[in-house]
Amino acid sequence: MTRVVLVAGTTETASIQGISAAGADSDLLVHTPSADAEILTYGEPACAPVVPTSPSGCPTPAVVTRAVREQVGFDVTVVDAGLQKTTGAPTVTVGAQPGGDIRKENPVPTASRAFESARQLGRALPDDELLLAESIPGGTTTALGVLRALGEHGAVSSSLQENPIEQKNAVVAVGLAASGMSGGGAAGEPRRAVERMGDPVLAVIAGLARGAIETEKTVTFAGGTQMLAAIALLRHEGVGSDLYLATTSFLVEDSTAGIAKLAKDLGVTITTTDPRFDVSNHPAMAGYVAGEAKEGVGMGGALALADRSSVPMSRVRKQVRLVYERLVEEPPAERSR
Amino acid sequence: MTRVVLVAGTTETASIQGISAAGADSDLLVHTPSADAEILTYGEPACAPVVPTSPSGCPTPAVVTRAVREQVGFDVTVVDAGLQKTTGAPTVTVGAQPGGDIRKENPVPTASRAFESARQLGRALPDDELLLAESIPGGTTTALGVLRALGEHGAVSSSLQENPIEQKNAVVAVGLAASGMSGGGAAGEPRRAVERMGDPVLAVIAGLARGAIETEKTVTFAGGTQMLAAIALLRHEGVGSDLYLATTSFLVEDSTAGIAKLAKDLGVTITTTDPRFDVSNHPAMAGYVAGEAKEGVGMGGALALADRSSVPMSRVRKQVRLVYERLVEEPPAERSR
Repeated sequence: MTRVVLVAGTTETASIQGISAAGADSDLLVHTPSADAEILTYGEPACAPVVPTSPSGCPTPAVVTRAVREQVGFDVTVVDAGLQKTTGAPTVTVGAQPGGDIRKENPVPTASRAFESARQLGRALPDDELLLAESIPGGTTTALGVLRALGEHGAVSSSLQENPIEQKNAVVAVGLAASGMSGGGAAGEPRRAVERMGDPVLAVIAGLARGAIETEKTVTFAGGTQMLAAIALLRHEGVGSDLYLATTSFLVEDSTAGIAKLAKDLGVTITTTDPRFDVSNHPAMAGYVAGEAKEGVGMGGALALADRSSVPMSRVRKQVRLVYERLVEEPPAERSR
Repeated sequence: MTRVVLVAGTTETASIQGISAAGADSDLLVHTPSADAEILTYGEPACAPVVPTSPSGCPTPAVVTRAVREQVGFDVTVVDAGLQKTTGAPTVTVGAQPGGDIRKENPVPTASRAFESARQLGRALPDDELLLAESIPGGTTTALGVLRALGEHGAVSSSLQENPIEQKNAVVAVGLAASGMSGGGAAGEPRRAVERMGDPVLAVIAGLARGAIETEKTVTFAGGTQMLAAIALLRHEGVGSDLYLATTSFLVEDSTAGIAKLAKDLGVTITTTDPRFDVSNHPAMAGYVAGEAKEGVGMGGALALADRSSVPMSRVRKQVRLVYERLVEEPPAERSR
């Protein structure tokens, strides 16, 4: 049986203007991971006051992952990797706190403890196969921070149509300076890299994967460049085993992300799934075709599961419409009145 | 869709010698609700170091509820109502802390806050039907405390073969004195009753039910006398609607519990399901036939769901054997090595 483990958390890095599209505006960004956890768990937000969308209205990839779940029926476990807002979704606690702004010193002091707790959880989960997913606004910037601290040369993707890569590089440069580090300054020291330049989600994903690999589970990293940063952490921990990434066609088509090159450097096998959102002209899917969101909340991994379970993409798209309509018809603010 | 909500917590009242059979010895009791949550969620303990059994080896009713889940496929949400030990099962947080010994003053200071948070969660959950379940060693003693504080005259059941009802009455008498209260001293004041004489699980169950009823969900209380104590809290809150209890034949046959009389006093309709464990001669079921455990972790409600889903009890018993064997073959201490 496959279990999707959603690692959901926050970083203050997301509040830097222009960094993230994982929320309609910066006040709403902090609710996104809590709402994503609820959508994946319940099919709609429960306690979260918002359905996460990009500023232009592209809905969170949680809609797609949930839609696949409603077709395939996989189990979900959400891990609290530093949520700032309470969620009505059940979460496993691993001692993570919300991450700070990487431009400051020591933004993720809980990283090592969270890594170890997550590793124990990864060992303890009874499943044969784990699909690791993430939700953290601003997460590609902290992923870039970790890659640079480790001395890896890859770029990162973006939830925005136009990747603000110059701004991300600038943020990372300030962060490295604040940590008294140059690029590659934490090579071979993954705990230090994630404490100084990362976020709690990366620490927890790396920990879960480490524990799962140690107990011979099959691990699929379901996501984009953030997952590659978590994989880089594992490689610098000395994990040499074969690793697998499942992602979307939208991410692979993003030339600014350079995902194929980075995956090759890290010895990662990529599976790409194209949900053919282009054949549908629906507000739930149009944003992706235009290059927004791209990936997140395990979307690429969920699509790969659908494929493996012989659920045709036409059925996935139909279910995406249904989930989306459920969210739009009954906005969170109205529901519990 | 039906969701089983397991409300899991602890009370120091359980550490009084001879009060509870919800653990092989008093050191292991505190792990029981965390382990029950894992068994219901994953089918086996994950991080908990123990499979809960009574001192004579009767396995936790979580085994039965999980077995039904594997046949019927209902959703589960675990609410942390004051767990003392961490659990690898995901839990929703409602601000509850472990309960204190009711022989002391103010044992459940978080009761009111937890009630309100649970009420919001009960309103927010998207399901049409909730089945409320509990796991808290010592819970029948605190249930008795609440009934006495409210001035309700019912007795309570026990997880032991011989109900230590004299001892429970003595504990409750000390508790009432410590709270400066006589029997019925908190009639019409349910929050005070649960704060002074109850446990966090009762507060959370009452809150969940209140919120669910306010939003017109069907609520079934899946359990025994602890559920009747939660219902008494609701009646003293002024909730007048029809209420339903689903329990096991083992509980109803316990003459010391006087469940039928108390249910009638509180205006509760009871559904009883007999899993016919007597036709099986298996260690997973023999304890129940001998009068141990009786109910807990939503067992009676799960059996009623099986019945409603036309799953024959012979299939339930077969699955109970399978779940039990999984637990016995691979004890928690061996698993993550």
